[in-house]
Amino acid sequence: MTFSLTRSIRFCAAHRLFNPAWSDEENFRVFGKCSLPGGHGHTYLLTVTVSGPLDPHSGMIINVATLRDILRREVFDLLDHRDLNHDVPFLQGLVPTMENIAQKLAERLQPVFAAHQLTLTRLSLAESDHHYVTIDLP
Amino acid sequence: MTFSLTRSIRFCAAHRLFNPAWSDEENFRVFGKCSLPGGHGHTYLLTVTVSGPLDPHSGMIINVATLRDILRREVFDLLDHRDLNHDVPFLQGLVPTMENIAQKLAERLQPVFAAHQLTLTRLSLAESDHHYVTIDLP
Amino acid sequence: MTFSLTRSIRFCAAHRLFNPAWSDEENFRVFGKCSLPGGHGHTYLLTVTVSGPLDPHSGMIINVATLRDILRREVFDLLDHRDLNHDVPFLQGLVPTMENIAQKLAERLQPVFAAHQLTLTRLSLAESDHHYVTIDLP
Amino acid sequence: MTFSLTRSIRFCAAHRLFNPAWSDEENFRVFGKCSLPGGHGHTYLLTVTVSGPLDPHSGMIINVATLRDILRREVFDLLDHRDLNHDVPFLQGLVPTMENIAQKLAERLQPVFAAHQLTLTRLSLAESDHHYVTIDLP
Amino acid sequence: MTFSLTRSIRFCAAHRLFNPAWSDEENFRVFGKCSLPGGHGHTYLLTVTVSGPLDPHSGMIINVATLRDILRREVFDLLDHRDLNHDVPFLQGLVPTMENIAQKLAERLQPVFAAHQLTLTRLSLAESDHHYVTIDLP
Amino acid sequence: MTFSLTRSIRFCAAHRLFNPAWSDEENFRVFGKCSLPGGHGHTYLLTVTVSGPLDPHSGMIINVATLRDILRREVFDLLDHRDLNHDVPFLQGLVPTMENIAQKLAERLQPVFAAHQLTLTRLSLAESDHHYVTIDLP
Repeated sequence: MTFSLTRSIRFCAAHRLFNPAWSDEENFRVFGKCSLPGGHGHTYLLTVTVSGPLDPHSGMIINVATLRDILRREVFDLLDHRDLNHDVPFLQGLVPTMENIAQKLAERLQPVFAAHQLTLTRLSLAESDHHYVTIDLP
Repeated sequence: MTFSLTRSIRFCAAHRLFNPAWSDEENFRVFGKCSLPGGHGHTYLLTVTVSGPLDPHSGMIINVATLRDILRREVFDLLDHRDLNHDVPFLQGLVPTMENIAQKLAERLQPVFAAHQLTLTRLSLAESDHHYVTIDLP
Repeated sequence: MTFSLTRSIRFCAAHRLFNPAWSDEENFRVFGKCSLPGGHGHTYLLTVTVSGPLDPHSGMIINVATLRDILRREVFDLLDHRDLNHDVPFLQGLVPTMENIAQKLAERLQPVFAAHQLTLTRLSLAESDHHYVTIDLP
Repeated sequence: MTFSLTRSIRFCAAHRLFNPAWSDEENFRVFGKCSLPGGHGHTYLLTVTVSGPLDPHSGMIINVATLRDILRREVFDLLDHRDLNHDVPFLQGLVPTMENIAQKLAERLQPVFAAHQLTLTRLSLAESDHHYVTIDLP
Repeated sequence: MTFSLTRSIRFCAAHRLFNPAWSDEENFRVFGKCSLPGGHGHTYLLTVTVSGPLDPHSGMIINVATLRDILRREVFDLLDHRDLNHDVPFLQGLVPTMENIAQKLAERLQPVFAAHQLTLTRLSLAESDHHYVTIDLP
Repeated sequence: MTFSLTRSIRFCAAHRLFNPAWSDEENFRVFGKCSLPGGHGHTYLLTVTVSGPLDPHSGMIINVATLRDILRREVFDLLDHRDLNHDVPFLQGLVPTMENIAQKLAERLQPVFAAHQLTLTRLSLAESDHHYVTIDLP
C-alpha cells in the first residue's frame, strides 16, 4: 500500500497571457481573450499530493496542518491578491499559463517536502471547477 | 404559490479595490491586500432570480435557455476576461466591490427582464464558495 | 426567530417537453432540444424547506431522518428512474417542466408536512448546478 | 435595493443528541443513532448573512475580511475540534441539535454585528451538503 | 514532469439499461430499476485528461478553449438531450451503461486528440457526484 | 483500456487523535487541537475505486448498486454515528488518523471485492473538501 496526503488551497490573482516576443495579433490568435491588455483573474485552486511512509507512532504521513502551513507560506502568501505577470519573482519572464505556474510551484515545493522526507507526487492547478492542469512527478 | 427561476453564470475578471480620493495608506487600511497596485482577480459566480406567472401552455415562467442567453449577452460578453476597473463602461467611476458590481448589474438587468414580463427579485455575486453579496429587490 | 429545516434529495428521471396541443414545429420553437422525440433526462435535485416551532424537549423542529423518510416515500420511490411523461400518475396531462413538477410536488407534500405540524415554505427543483425553479409558499 | 453579505465558515466538532431527563430508550426513540453513548461528529458549515447600508466611499457593507475575522473569533475558535456537549460554555444545558446550536450562535452574533451597524438577517447551520437548519431574523 | 490538462463537460440524456437478448426478468435481475421500460436519465459529467509536451512559446499543452470546443463538437452536440439507446449512431447495439458509453467516447476522442499531438490518458463519466466510471489508457 | 468504477459514501463519526504511550504534552505537540480530551468529529467521505474486466453481456464491471450495498454494509453500518476510538472493533488499538482508518478499511474491503472478481485499486478518505488521504494498491 502506498499512502499519500492531498491538500488544496485557494488564491485569487490576476494574469494576462501574453508573449512579448509576438505581435498583439499573434497573441490574440494563440491566447484569445486571455491576451486582452487589461488582464483578467481567477479564483485558483491548487491541489498538492505528497507521498511517504506512515509513521507507526503518530499514524500519519505528515500532520495535515503542517502541509497547510507550508502551502500558506510558500504559495498563498506570495500569490494571493497578486498580479502573476509582475508581482511574483519566481514567475518572472514566463507566460503565466496554468502549466507554467504549476511547473514553478512544483519546483519550489519539491525541496520543501523533501526536507520533511516526503515526495511531491502530483500537483494540480485549476482556474475553474471545469478545467485544470496536472503535473505527475515520477 | 410564487414561482421563480434561478440561473448562474461564471465569469473571470481582474479588479483592484482602490478609491482615488484616498491616499494609498487609507486604501490599504480599508481594502487590505485588495488594494495592491497590480490588482488581482476572481472566478465570479453571478446568480440571478426572476419571478413571474406560469404560462399555462408551456408550463414555464421563461425558457431557461432564454435566461441563459440574456446573461451571456448582458453580463458574460461584457465582463468575462476584463479588467473591471477600466474595461467595462457601466462600471466606470466606481470602486469595483462585489456590492457595486452587483448593483450595476441589477440596474442593467431589471429593464431587460421587465421586457419579458419578469421581475428581477434577487441577484447574488460571489467571489468564492464562501462569500457573496446579495441584492433583494422588492 | 423563525426556524426552518431544509433537506435535499436526488432522483434520476427522463422527460420530454412537449405540448400535444401544438405542432412539432411549435414545440421545437418553444422548447428547443427539450422537445426532441426520444426525450432526455436529468439528475434532479429536490430541496424542501419546512418551518415550525422548536420542540423545547428535543431541541428540533422535526428529526431530519423523518424528513428524509417522507421525501423518499413521497418523491424518490415514485419518480426515481421513471419517465416523467408517462410513469407518474400525479404528473399525467402536464408538460413535465421544472415548474410543473415542482408545483405538483408542493401540492403533494403540503398536507404530509401539515400532519407533522409543519409548514412547507419553500421547494426548489434543480436540473443542474446552474439552474433551478423555486416555489415560495406564503 | 437591500444589500446583504453572506459568509460561510467550517468547523469540526463532536456531539451527542441526548436529553438527560429521558431514559436511554426514549432518547433512542427520538434521536436514533444520534443518541449512541460514544457520540459522533460532523464537519459543520455555518453560513451567516448580514444586511446594512452601502458605504458610498468604500462601496461595501463591511469588508468581508472583517466578517471572516468575527466568525473565526466568535465561532471557530470556540467550537472547532470541540465536544459540543461539554466544551462550549454557551451551549451548556442544551441538547446540541442544529436548531439549538444555531439559536445560540445567532444570539451571540447579533450584538457583535450591531456594533458594526449591521443586522444579522439569516444564519444557517449544515451538518452535510444535504441538510441544514436556517434561522430568519425579522 | 508529465503535464496533462483536464476538462469536464456536462450533458443531459435519457437511457435504459436493457439487453434485448435477455428476458424482462433477467434484465430486472441484472439492472434493477435501470431496466424499467420508460427509461430514465442523468445529468452526465464527462471528464477528459490529455497529456503532451509543453509548447515552450505558449506555455501550454493545448489551449483549454480548443479542448472545450472538441468536447462540444464530438460529445455535447451529439449526446446532449438525446436518448442514448436510439439517437446516437456510435452507441447503437450496446447496452448504454457508463462503461460502454465511456469506451465509445474514448475510441472516438483518441484520434481527434492524436491529430493535436496529444494523448488521451484518462476519461471519466459520472452519473452523479457519488459514482463514475474511469478508463485509463496506457 | 483499463476500466474502473468509483463510488463515494459519507459517514459522520467522532474521533480523538491520542497515543496513550505519550504524555498529554507530547500528544498536543504532535496532534494539536485534534488531541483535545473531548474529541471532535467529521463528516467523512470515503471514495473507493475497483477495477476489473467488462462483462460483455451487461456492459458493466459491477452494478453500482452492488458496490453501494457493499460500502453500506462494510463501512457505513459500522462507522456512521460512532466514536472511532472506542466503538469499532477493527479500529481498536490504533490512533484513528485518516491514514490508519483508510488502511483498515482497505484491508477489510480487499477480500470482499476479490469475491466479486474485482481489484480494489484506490481508496481515499476525506475529512473535508480540502484534504484527504489516498491509498493506491498495486
